[in-house]
Amino acid sequence: MAQHLNRRVILSERATGLPTPKLFSIVEDDVPSPSVGEVLLNNIYVTADPGMKGWISMARNYASVETGTTMHSFSVGVVVESKHPNVAEGDVVAANTGWAEYAVADPERQTFRKVDPEAAPLSTALGVLGINGFTAYFGLLSVGQPKPGDTVVVSTAAGAVGSAVGQIAKIKGCRTVGIAGGPEKIALCTEIFGFDAAIDYKATGDLDAAIRAACPEGIDVYFDNVGGETLDIVLGQVNLHGRVVICGTAATDAWIPQPSGLRPERNLLVNRIKMEGVLTFDFADRYNEAHADLSEWLRDGNIRYREDIVDGLENAPAALAGLYEGRNMGRQLIRVRPDPFL
Amino acid sequence: MAQHLNRRVILSERATGLPTPKLFSIVEDDVPSPSVGEVLLNNIYVTADPGMKGWISMARNYASVETGTTMHSFSVGVVVESKHPNVAEGDVVAANTGWAEYAVADPERQTFRKVDPEAAPLSTALGVLGINGFTAYFGLLSVGQPKPGDTVVVSTAAGAVGSAVGQIAKIKGCRTVGIAGGPEKIALCTEIFGFDAAIDYKATGDLDAAIRAACPEGIDVYFDNVGGETLDIVLGQVNLHGRVVICGTAATDAWIPQPSGLRPERNLLVNRIKMEGVLTFDFADRYNEAHADLSEWLRDGNIRYREDIVDGLENAPAALAGLYEGRNMGRQLIRVRPDPFL
Repeated sequence: MAQHLNRRVILSERATGLPTPKLFSIVEDDVPSPSVGEVLLNNIYVTADPGMKGWISMARNYASVETGTTMHSFSVGVVVESKHPNVAEGDVVAANTGWAEYAVADPERQTFRKVDPEAAPLSTALGVLGINGFTAYFGLLSVGQPKPGDTVVVSTAAGAVGSAVGQIAKIKGCRTVGIAGGPEKIALCTEIFGFDAAIDYKATGDLDAAIRAACPEGIDVYFDNVGGETLDIVLGQVNLHGRVVICGTAATDAWIPQPSGLRPERNLLVNRIKMEGVLTFDFADRYNEAHADLSEWLRDGNIRYREDIVDGLENAPAALAGLYEGRNMGRQLIRVRPDPFL
Repeated sequence: MAQHLNRRVILSERATGLPTPKLFSIVEDDVPSPSVGEVLLNNIYVTADPGMKGWISMARNYASVETGTTMHSFSVGVVVESKHPNVAEGDVVAANTGWAEYAVADPERQTFRKVDPEAAPLSTALGVLGINGFTAYFGLLSVGQPKPGDTVVVSTAAGAVGSAVGQIAKIKGCRTVGIAGGPEKIALCTEIFGFDAAIDYKATGDLDAAIRAACPEGIDVYFDNVGGETLDIVLGQVNLHGRVVICGTAATDAWIPQPSGLRPERNLLVNRIKMEGVLTFDFADRYNEAHADLSEWLRDGNIRYREDIVDGLENAPAALAGLYEGRNMGRQLIRVRPDPFL
């Protein structure tokens, strides 16, 4: 592949607040060569994820990106060269190769997964049949443990994870209440994703009262993608033995210095609430189970999804920044080159 | 029993801060009569518990006491009149009859339990073989889920619950680190209760550094009886998939208005920590299991305990206030009348 140049987006500078495009640079260099056991991928889609805020911040986390290296990202692409016995040229795979046209991947890593591009649109491998769907599935079912009749509240309810959580909770017989910002997202929640009620946190002057009105029997499961004041408010309404799934912290722009909020421990104690962080990667050995269930629900029309796709790798940093302004109306993807399976 | 007057302590006024004796009054009235299915108890010991702060505060909780009624309390006493077919006069029972010399109890309630006064000192039914031991047992084993080699940190480590937690954790093969206030309690932790290390939070200028030094491999289980800043600090040192057992909030004097602290959600997410409130009563159907294990450990010398006993029901309010000044050096009991089994 030495005849091509490879474009990729590197992190130039760590973020002290929300991600902005100027933290990133585009570089062009040689297409890399796979070593024995590795494969070379030509990407079709990469992603912009809310969690990336943490990956590039000064406070280190589970997926911190070093400056000068390719920005981490989930990806789907086609194998163009294989030095692994079980992977063939032409295989379509989901991986996490970063914001790059070409990238080397190690098929032995848990995030490497073959995808059938005929079974569903390829982009869903990065959304409802990939990281977002799996996050919703394991976070809700394993940590949230919803029971029929439970009231399940979800923040960023119109988002890729939140919308899947709401729909899985409905499938499990729960009453679902979404929290989102702006009339378009509220309409998505109730008209597309089937939430029983949706609260526009930007339009209500009293979020506590609005949630109370939407949850007259209290909250059994809170699937939280935002943290912050919304979490503080919800914790005061969680029922005895309720479960709070901590999946994201979108409401907090930066964690250095660590911000303050209402102390949670009394609510946890008095109502014996479980609050637990969830990361999909911990469930990698059960991805097949999630994929099978989600595929069936998708085929049967019980799960719907929205995508927001921008073209061109160079637009990835702006797409990422846009997430935090709430501009996207669905799973934010970056199409690196035309999707050959459309 | 109409020939006796009954002395009891009632709550006169709800607390806005820490309990003080003037919130309580002593009243004398007739000894009550049991209805069909009930029994009359003549108490020997009642208790002063850290959790009582919450029972009498303006913010309602699981055991709120109404003003004008007998202060809630755990108790052991002798049955002096029975109208229940399975309970006989002379039976010794643990119950929660409140701060009273005589009280009617319903044996069908989960907190009513016959005690063998020959098997262990009667007072242990209110401590290591009762509410404190059970709290430690279920909180640590069911919620904390310690594994051999884990580092287990305990706050109020010299207290009735904390000391049992530390010793059960040692039995389960863990390394134990206690946090307590003052040299006497630190000595109890390391010399009597077998903690591998103990931190005097009153003597250290940098609790974060002191905990880090005592837990070089991080913290796997935090059994928390205090909340507040200690919880904030510990959360920053909890390992991947660590467990935080919320058992008490002794560090916070009042919850109206709800105080602020460092936001926990990022630590929970990045390290996938579980933080869960625990209340012993939820495990009432497993008390026999806890009692059997704790009795064996007590007989074998693997669990030790300390008691701090004051004589006279009239001294119960002062004993309660003393808890929050850290004055007691063991399970705080009030001896209502001479213990006939000593």
